[in-house]
Amino acid sequence: MERNRNMTRLKASYLFPEINARKRQFLAQHPEASLISLGIGDTTEPIPGAIAQALVEASAGMGSVKGYVGYGPEQGMKALREKIALKLYSNRVSPDDIFISDGAKCDIGRLQMLFGEGVTIAIQDPAYPVYVDGSLIQGVKKIIWLPCLPENHFFPDLEKLENVDLIYFCSPNNPTGTVATRAQLEKLVQFAVAHRSIILFDAAYSHYIQDPKLPRSIFEIEGARKVAIEMNSFSKLAGFTGVRLGWTVVSDELKYDDGTSVKADWSRVMSTVFNGASHISQTGGCAALESQGLQEIDALIAFYMENARILKEACEALGYEVFGGVNAPYLWVRVKGRNSWDVFQEFLDRYQLVITPGAGFGPAGEGFIRLTAFGHRENIVKAVERLRKG
Amino acid sequence: MERNRNMTRLKASYLFPEINARKRQFLAQHPEASLISLGIGDTTEPIPGAIAQALVEASAGMGSVKGYVGYGPEQGMKALREKIALKLYSNRVSPDDIFISDGAKCDIGRLQMLFGEGVTIAIQDPAYPVYVDGSLIQGVKKIIWLPCLPENHFFPDLEKLENVDLIYFCSPNNPTGTVATRAQLEKLVQFAVAHRSIILFDAAYSHYIQDPKLPRSIFEIEGARKVAIEMNSFSKLAGFTGVRLGWTVVSDELKYDDGTSVKADWSRVMSTVFNGASHISQTGGCAALESQGLQEIDALIAFYMENARILKEACEALGYEVFGGVNAPYLWVRVKGRNSWDVFQEFLDRYQLVITPGAGFGPAGEGFIRLTAFGHRENIVKAVERLRKG
Repeated sequence: MERNRNMTRLKASYLFPEINARKRQFLAQHPEASLISLGIGDTTEPIPGAIAQALVEASAGMGSVKGYVGYGPEQGMKALREKIALKLYSNRVSPDDIFISDGAKCDIGRLQMLFGEGVTIAIQDPAYPVYVDGSLIQGVKKIIWLPCLPENHFFPDLEKLENVDLIYFCSPNNPTGTVATRAQLEKLVQFAVAHRSIILFDAAYSHYIQDPKLPRSIFEIEGARKVAIEMNSFSKLAGFTGVRLGWTVVSDELKYDDGTSVKADWSRVMSTVFNGASHISQTGGCAALESQGLQEIDALIAFYMENARILKEACEALGYEVFGGVNAPYLWVRVKGRNSWDVFQEFLDRYQLVITPGAGFGPAGEGFIRLTAFGHRENIVKAVERLRKG
Repeated sequence: MERNRNMTRLKASYLFPEINARKRQFLAQHPEASLISLGIGDTTEPIPGAIAQALVEASAGMGSVKGYVGYGPEQGMKALREKIALKLYSNRVSPDDIFISDGAKCDIGRLQMLFGEGVTIAIQDPAYPVYVDGSLIQGVKKIIWLPCLPENHFFPDLEKLENVDLIYFCSPNNPTGTVATRAQLEKLVQFAVAHRSIILFDAAYSHYIQDPKLPRSIFEIEGARKVAIEMNSFSKLAGFTGVRLGWTVVSDELKYDDGTSVKADWSRVMSTVFNGASHISQTGGCAALESQGLQEIDALIAFYMENARILKEACEALGYEVFGGVNAPYLWVRVKGRNSWDVFQEFLDRYQLVITPGAGFGPAGEGFIRLTAFGHRENIVKAVERLRKG
């Protein structure tokens, strides 16, 4: 059979393979080196007590007649959907609009399947590479990059944007660590209403927002139900990167141009190509949203945010301009006039630190590097000492 | 935005909603009734001891610094891939060709994404509805149904088949419970080689094969590596329907017409729209393939196969012709000259038994009903008593 021509449109996956190749080369030359990674967006701290205990109990239950569970309800456990609606959305969305999944990345892929080929999409630049690659696999017609830079407060110039079908928007942003304000999101929703676009709002880092004035969900914005889908996850919320649990919110109010329901089609896609998140993971998710679990989550996030503060302070003391790191676990460090891969190499050679070059996230990422606040405290402190010593 | 036109090609999902509607109606009229379900392909027995214990330990580990795991390796845990290759394939396939996932249904959806739109597919009739629906969502060009009936030993007449890109083939078969012989699979592979088709071989029930002469994998057939992809799962193997764990095998030898590697594209799809199976589930999967786990699995499958034997004997005593149920957990019962929905209603009204009408699986399913061997023994025995009493 013939190769799917959409696959030929994918560029070679360059960023992390190249980082790994350079790491390997460095370690071959310096076998004694002790590298510290500030490069990967993966949680490092154990799952807190009550939540881990719930995973244990659900696992034990699966071994008993009483606790055994096979396939679960199609949209996910009702108690979990109710808790998400109440605790994370203050019931701004209905449990019936929440679809439980094995993670936001996987839901993004299924959403791309939902909308199919021939669509025009707009993407923040820099951006999470999956938005582009998954769209290409599905045969996207056109991709419009929206530069997000300090000069435009990391918010795209929507005035210049033509009609698009889908707008990917990530806030708190990966990689820049910046968060859209309420006024900015209002503009975004207004644009989508006016142009009949659908916003795919990636809120995977929403719980890192410390400033209560900043919106944690697109659904805090008037009218968003009619134009937005929100993806979120327990990965960064409760350290579930290895446990796999996420959700997507699609309101009944969201309609295609012909008046048919996007939610009905989404439900059909989910029941066709997905078969539920693990019962164990879902039980852990429920525990994370009980009062003790929520306290534990807050402490976990506070821990990573203290890492972010330490890194930010150190970078600023060295004269770097730092964005993010206040309401997000990512720091976007300006390396003015320098190539971000050169800075990557310098950090590796000089400090034995692995960071992510901004250019890997899109053209507007050039001139920046990304640091993540995920790491054991001792490593963060060591990294900062190395930077200080120079 | 406009609705994805592929979604309009899906027929209303009729089978299980209609079954549920009829159940509800019956219970409204007979609130005292005690229904027994022989209709759903979902495991019912607890996960055996050593396997459940591994789930417990992995869960507890996630709560400790030492046992915590974030994102895993992209293709899945190496130990698990090695165990699958050794214990389930006698190293006929390489661990490098195995991609761990959250289940076969989800992998089928991603495979449909891999091959994209415009393909021609052939499907056994009757068949698992997901093959058709997922293909329609991806914009399949043409679907050819291959009737599988007692008259052709449930194996399609390949001589009449024109060129197709993909052939879905499920053995042991859902819903018919029949298993393709080695000679039949050789024919299938020869067809695929001659016509440059790719076989998507669904082996989710392979462990229910009791007859050692019957192939458990398409890769037992010479040349299959060049033409086949195999999907499999821990769901029916170890009772993991609620735990979520599966795998797909794609060999380096499988190439598109232009000589490029199918596996390379599959790897790219997986790393773009999937983010790994749960670490807890994968640890459980490893335990299932240790020697104690394998013994436990064999006992679990023997339990369900005894259910199948009891059901088969009872149906045959009533004069029904029964296919399957010997090397598969499904029984395909001929209800000659009768409409399968009428028989569904009769079983509900007369015996308070819920079965699945064969017509729900495709045109060639008319005149049959499907019974499943998944159930607590007491329910299977009760069901059989009801059938006997008439």
